[in-house]
Amino acid sequence: MGTDRLARTPEPPYFAVIFTSARTDGDNGYAEMAEALVALASQQPGFLGIESVRGSDGVGITVSYWSSQEAIGNWKMNSEHLVAQRHGKAKWYQNFVVRVAKVERAYGKPPAE
Amino acid sequence: MGTDRLARTPEPPYFAVIFTSARTDGDNGYAEMAEALVALASQQPGFLGIESVRGSDGVGITVSYWSSQEAIGNWKMNSEHLVAQRHGKAKWYQNFVVRVAKVERAYGKPPAE
Repeated sequence: MGTDRLARTPEPPYFAVIFTSARTDGDNGYAEMAEALVALASQQPGFLGIESVRGSDGVGITVSYWSSQEAIGNWKMNSEHLVAQRHGKAKWYQNFVVRVAKVERAYGKPPAE
Repeated sequence: MGTDRLARTPEPPYFAVIFTSARTDGDNGYAEMAEALVALASQQPGFLGIESVRGSDGVGITVSYWSSQEAIGNWKMNSEHLVAQRHGKAKWYQNFVVRVAKVERAYGKPPAE
């Protein structure tokens, strides 16, 4: 089930990259690429976790969490290099928005053990 | 299609509430409630937009955007009142995390007109 798909982040402050997008029709190598991007993110210094959901209408939200702005900058450079190698953004996304934000507080209901 | 489901927010800075959750099985009044919450949010002072996706495995991400921390505080109070009236969180969510963040920069690919 989904309970382990929520990121377990430390106490704030830390940083979030909120990526919202609307996909084009067809896969065009996207699924493989998305998997490679997550694998790459999790190897980056300062990576804290990632949450990603895509609905049946092609709209998706991915939020990755980072210890610093510097970690985000490194991740941006590496991920854009990988995407560029595969000629990606134009064919995969109708539109997208990337928002970089500082998480100031967090609370919630933890999963039952 | 999904292009109009991405929020059109102003230039940063502004604030984001990132709500990630794993649903329980069954609807239990959830769909109606979710709709009521979005309608309520869009009437709040300082509301800038909302993006919401839930995957087939029950994991969901909703990001709402706000002009100030004060607007978020008001929204939190009103939404919790609405949810409490319907005895909601415990029956709808296995677990959830709410993160309040300040959006510092944003960029992207706008939808084709």
